[in-house]
Amino acid sequence: MKRILIIGTGGTIASTKTEAGYKSVLSVDEILNLAGIKLRNGYKIDRANVLNLDSTLIQPEDWEIIAKEVFKALDEYDGIVITHGTDTLGYTASMLSFMLRNVNKPVVLTGSMLPITEKGSDAPRNLKAAIKFAMEEVAGVFVAFMDKIMLGCRASKVRALGLNAFMSINYPDVAYVKGEKILYNISKEKFRPNGEPQLDIKYDPRVVFLRIIPGLGEEVIEAIINTGYRGIVLEGYGAGGIPYRKRNLLDKIKEIAPKIPVVMTTQAIHDGVDMTKYEVGRKALETGIIPAKDMTKEATVTKLMWALGHTKDVEEVRKIMHTNYVNEIEG
Amino acid sequence: MKRILIIGTGGTIASTKTEAGYKSVLSVDEILNLAGIKLRNGYKIDRANVLNLDSTLIQPEDWEIIAKEVFKALDEYDGIVITHGTDTLGYTASMLSFMLRNVNKPVVLTGSMLPITEKGSDAPRNLKAAIKFAMEEVAGVFVAFMDKIMLGCRASKVRALGLNAFMSINYPDVAYVKGEKILYNISKEKFRPNGEPQLDIKYDPRVVFLRIIPGLGEEVIEAIINTGYRGIVLEGYGAGGIPYRKRNLLDKIKEIAPKIPVVMTTQAIHDGVDMTKYEVGRKALETGIIPAKDMTKEATVTKLMWALGHTKDVEEVRKIMHTNYVNEIEG
Repeated sequence: MKRILIIGTGGTIASTKTEAGYKSVLSVDEILNLAGIKLRNGYKIDRANVLNLDSTLIQPEDWEIIAKEVFKALDEYDGIVITHGTDTLGYTASMLSFMLRNVNKPVVLTGSMLPITEKGSDAPRNLKAAIKFAMEEVAGVFVAFMDKIMLGCRASKVRALGLNAFMSINYPDVAYVKGEKILYNISKEKFRPNGEPQLDIKYDPRVVFLRIIPGLGEEVIEAIINTGYRGIVLEGYGAGGIPYRKRNLLDKIKEIAPKIPVVMTTQAIHDGVDMTKYEVGRKALETGIIPAKDMTKEATVTKLMWALGHTKDVEEVRKIMHTNYVNEIEG
Repeated sequence: MKRILIIGTGGTIASTKTEAGYKSVLSVDEILNLAGIKLRNGYKIDRANVLNLDSTLIQPEDWEIIAKEVFKALDEYDGIVITHGTDTLGYTASMLSFMLRNVNKPVVLTGSMLPITEKGSDAPRNLKAAIKFAMEEVAGVFVAFMDKIMLGCRASKVRALGLNAFMSINYPDVAYVKGEKILYNISKEKFRPNGEPQLDIKYDPRVVFLRIIPGLGEEVIEAIINTGYRGIVLEGYGAGGIPYRKRNLLDKIKEIAPKIPVVMTTQAIHDGVDMTKYEVGRKALETGIIPAKDMTKEATVTKLMWALGHTKDVEEVRKIMHTNYVNEIEG
């Protein structure tokens, strides 16, 4: 008999309309009832209500709680579903991908854009897809949304209101749920268990994510570093260059990067950074900045936090950032 | 006889391969020759080489230079094309949309993802579309890319490497260039000259753009404000909420927002912010934060800089941010 655990953390999928706006209040049992989830014989679903938060409020400490809950369940269950608000779902899915080393079951995050209590809610559809995929013989952290199954470390929220809110960035969707079928885009063989599962929850949350815009001065970067934060992600423009005309960010980064990891990602949603193409990119590379390559912003941020939990050495952080653990970065 | 002015500012479209990577060096004449632009009788193209920069290096002061150059040309020319690097093209197009009040001619920015000297470059195609649209009887700031004509204040770079690099965000493409034809998606009537052109280049570049991520502490926002920067754009998660659990950004924003404009945009590329839906959004609204609504990030940043050049009063800034000048915000 297949056993699935559903871990509730809150979010729109657990929300009802209140005087004060949508608010996360429903338990997993209530969600399942409202979604009208009917199981075929031979399946059993258990529930764990771990958090009940609008995911705007999710903090790094919550990732530890969720990761521990999942890890604890790996032996007993064939698959795990996590219901979660969509706002930080991409961050949680990415961090779980790193914290749950060698995870040997499917861990599927899902949520909804409309509360399950609203007409036309996407909650039943998303929840069914997640449960369905959690019964597959695959290993890894995934996101189920609008019948798409995406790799957890590649899923990014791209719509603030539309139902097709998540997109797999710089990586194909893993599979698509069509009625009772699951159609894979990528061979299942890529998601076989690999080694003994380990809970590796060491991280340092003190990371700042700053966009480079025309006019940004070095004093802002200096002020951020002086707060004692231990890592900074800079969101550059395109392939990844650092401005040095009129306002010299380049020299500031040159000064900081040997002591504090500075990671370069891009404002462009697709393609990632390639700092070898342009003169401005090559100059930037010489500062010792760490290119995020094709990682999502969510994976970049959480991986940097996770790396900082394992080492204080910038070159070690660079090595971790550029190691491909779960297909979060080009291999 | 139609007269077009092409203003060169550099960028990949003006680049050649050097030992140090792509570098912006070509004049507008050289670009036109390499693009093999042939004009029909009755047209005249003039050239002005204003800057020759990789657009990573474009700074707010350059917007003044470009705006003045365009304004000077409005009387003499029927249309103006600006060649520009793609990295900050969206920012320049947005700021020109605000600085060139009541512009009465088409001002069309374009660039390319591959240098014009490279095989398969998109430069000729983009330049031709831009020149073609600059001959139209319309008024406004536009971006021409991959045969799409977008509103300048809605165009955003979404690909770091792919040729179809720009997308019109939360607004349809204005038109599409197909061979010799221009197919409008939006009635031309929407882009008729309206009033006397004015050069309004007052702005304050001291704006910071910070992403909200799990773990972001109020001390980072405090440190940024203490640098003397005069405006902050916060990139929230989805519809726009502010975290207050474990790390209380909400109280910090409540303290700052009456003195320094704090604008809320979203990490999701589509839909913009709607802070009335969720409890976390409503609480955020009470701080006095200014929702960016459906504006692009580039329009939000440049409009805030421009607003700060016109007033020091937060409520006046809010009024400017929420005024629809050129279809940059829902009307």
